Amino acid sequence: MKHMLTLQHVRNEELWELILRADEFAKNKHPLQTPQHFVANLFFEASTRTKCSFEVAERKLGLSIIPFEASTSSVEKGESLYDTVKTLEAIGVDLVVIRHPREQFYAPLMEQTSCALVNAGDGCGDHPTQSLLDLLTIYQEFGGFKDLNIVIAGDIRHSRVARSNVQMLHRLGAKVMLSGPERWRDTMLEQSAPYRSFSQAVREADVVMMLRVQKERHDNQLLETNYLEQHGLSEERAATMKPTAIVMHPAPVNRGIELADALVEAPNSRIFKQMENGVYARMAVIRSILETKRRELTHGYRIQASQTVSSI
Amino acid sequence: MKHMLTLQHVRNEELWELILRADEFAKNKHPLQTPQHFVANLFFEASTRTKCSFEVAERKLGLSIIPFEASTSSVEKGESLYDTVKTLEAIGVDLVVIRHPREQFYAPLMEQTSCALVNAGDGCGDHPTQSLLDLLTIYQEFGGFKDLNIVIAGDIRHSRVARSNVQMLHRLGAKVMLSGPERWRDTMLEQSAPYRSFSQAVREADVVMMLRVQKERHDNQLLETNYLEQHGLSEERAATMKPTAIVMHPAPVNRGIELADALVEAPNSRIFKQMENGVYARMAVIRSILETKRRELTHGYRIQASQTVSSI
Amino acid sequence: MKHMLTLQHVRNEELWELILRADEFAKNKHPLQTPQHFVANLFFEASTRTKCSFEVAERKLGLSIIPFEASTSSVEKGESLYDTVKTLEAIGVDLVVIRHPREQFYAPLMEQTSCALVNAGDGCGDHPTQSLLDLLTIYQEFGGFKDLNIVIAGDIRHSRVARSNVQMLHRLGAKVMLSGPERWRDTMLEQSAPYRSFSQAVREADVVMMLRVQKERHDNQLLETNYLEQHGLSEERAATMKPTAIVMHPAPVNRGIELADALVEAPNSRIFKQMENGVYARMAVIRSILETKRRELTHGYRIQASQTVSSI
Repeated sequence: MKHMLTLQHVRNEELWELILRADEFAKNKHPLQTPQHFVANLFFEASTRTKCSFEVAERKLGLSIIPFEASTSSVEKGESLYDTVKTLEAIGVDLVVIRHPREQFYAPLMEQTSCALVNAGDGCGDHPTQSLLDLLTIYQEFGGFKDLNIVIAGDIRHSRVARSNVQMLHRLGAKVMLSGPERWRDTMLEQSAPYRSFSQAVREADVVMMLRVQKERHDNQLLETNYLEQHGLSEERAATMKPTAIVMHPAPVNRGIELADALVEAPNSRIFKQMENGVYARMAVIRSILETKRRELTHGYRIQASQTVSSI
Repeated sequence: MKHMLTLQHVRNEELWELILRADEFAKNKHPLQTPQHFVANLFFEASTRTKCSFEVAERKLGLSIIPFEASTSSVEKGESLYDTVKTLEAIGVDLVVIRHPREQFYAPLMEQTSCALVNAGDGCGDHPTQSLLDLLTIYQEFGGFKDLNIVIAGDIRHSRVARSNVQMLHRLGAKVMLSGPERWRDTMLEQSAPYRSFSQAVREADVVMMLRVQKERHDNQLLETNYLEQHGLSEERAATMKPTAIVMHPAPVNRGIELADALVEAPNSRIFKQMENGVYARMAVIRSILETKRRELTHGYRIQASQTVSSI
Repeated sequence: MKHMLTLQHVRNEELWELILRADEFAKNKHPLQTPQHFVANLFFEASTRTKCSFEVAERKLGLSIIPFEASTSSVEKGESLYDTVKTLEAIGVDLVVIRHPREQFYAPLMEQTSCALVNAGDGCGDHPTQSLLDLLTIYQEFGGFKDLNIVIAGDIRHSRVARSNVQMLHRLGAKVMLSGPERWRDTMLEQSAPYRSFSQAVREADVVMMLRVQKERHDNQLLETNYLEQHGLSEERAATMKPTAIVMHPAPVNRGIELADALVEAPNSRIFKQMENGVYARMAVIRSILETKRRELTHGYRIQASQTVSSI
């Protein structure tokens, strides 16, 4: 067989050879070299750093990555996320990383698939590997979290980073404050993290964690022309920080809006360190998931659904 | 940890484990290796399962895959398919998998390139690896094809699956029937596969092979609101199937249109099995082609054009 | 070599080293193993051959490639090229290949990143690996450049190929002529390469290097209906070429516009040879860059910025 263009002119013995050969592949699921782990990254929203960071992490762990572009997939023919994931599962994908505009997109999937799912951002919901890299960055800097003063500032209400970090940092013993424009306050979150004026918070903080102004989410809403001076971390305000304090930001930064341009690469900025840490954080997550998968297969049992739910 | 969906429910010791592990990764690095047959997948129409299935098959066979996106390629500058394939050949690609809306897109290419071509769907023409995975699925179920009753139902006229399967199954000794709305009958195909009412066909069949209603091909044509009851496989109709009979569908399924939602993952459905088999079928095809290529190179001769044409 | 941004400032011995090294790769298609190096290909303009060529070269050198699609990246959220590259650097990318519509897009980047940058085309500016593959092709044909007559013909003014090749060939001792429609003449370039009538140039030339009519750059400008006869290489004109002369073209070719259809694959065409050589040229560039990187790391010193600037 030189090409495979149509079966119409394939002779019967060749056809049988193909069927039997395919059946052999089917019976021996590791036909050739080292067993491969397959992963697909499904990004239904634009992303550079998160997607590339996962790609690097996956390659460093030796995974085989199945390219997936939402815009050229059958999702365009109206296929649901559920059917897309089930399809990937059927063709042998072990792990699916998903960013999706719908909050908790994973809820209808998690009990129905043997693919491991990694949430790479669900709408205004959560973004766990981002949190993990933030935690790693703070840990590397201070060796712990106990009694650290951390201010999270900006568009609190729409930030998946804020929500997740407030809870995590609180649990780890840090003292978290919130700050930012009145219109973006989140009273729910303020139960565990008090609201402070930004000037005061910046002076007290060990970590000033700025949030991105998500211009693409409220594009019809006018931003103050002096947003930086009023609500952002200007150079003047940064000058009031403690000498040991650090600046963080989930990026991409709107330079000159929430953060003064010169601060992005200043000595006390950890913004690019956070990006680097993103790779290690994602490696840790994926490695742990794959080990769990392997343990389940080896011991021939599956953690019961109820247990899984309570431990995620 | 089975999934990573949110950190909210991760216990503290697990969280610390993740942090410390990530920190370990931060302190060192790992290498990887690459094999050297090059393949490119040229999909000029949307596809999840076929493209991903080829991607998995190719990786399982250890091929190196050159990413190709029609939308960002020089095809946008008006380059022909012929020149695109010749370009890929020149830069060292051994095998090109193509899905293209034009029927027999491969005709002007096959004699002009040393790249092996695999047809992944040519318009309303053919889709040989889909046929092959259908054959494999039936073979796995019944151990052969002789005297099996197989009904193919739905939009016969526009289906590359129908055309190819009727011929192959007929040749392998199965008894094929066609069914579906009058407007989608294909009198040519009915010469080898008689038309039956769907109710009758479902009762007699060992295999009920439903076709996808290709909404994206006839979007200006109204579909009956009760299509499922009239022409689809409803739960009522499925209840009249033989106990050993199976349901097949090339997917993506329009749930609730050609097939009742509950039947997609029912015990007698082989729809996800078909997807899994797609990987093995494609592995068999690619492996056979690469063996032919290697034989030609080793023996230092090339099969003559006339021979090639008759054997494809 | 630290970056590869333009060949203009590459010293002659380095240039020769690149040519000879590329030729070695051409003769010995063997891959080279390296520790896991990460590369990203950022193409902000459509391209098949350049992008795929880099992809093959990178895989042959054993690099790990991080997929990047401009259309689905954070560039869509308004992120600058600078921040995109700094992000890739942070997540561990060693080498970034960029095609961008802005001339000298790399100017603000080169001193600010530890990523090596490879220019894969900057607007109407430069395209150094294309030049290198052209030089390699001529070198393979004639064993050198001294006193060769080379005509570059077509849309001189908008061609990054023309600019770069005129300078390089001139420096290597070839006699370069320019030709083409009056409206596309470039008086600056004519200081080192005289303008000739195309009929005369074709008769004298050892190499007829046709340029692509960039229809997508001047789409509102009408092309003569008899462009081929007036300004292109028609079969009649090609018949007046010296028997040893060759035809080159950076491709994609507008068949029947700047070049007669039948000439593209004629015996004296080197168009597909050029594409093949593109892979080797890119391998040579990337290998040199990675070796420089490794040397810098090993010896624990960094070439000073001033030195780097003068040697690029």
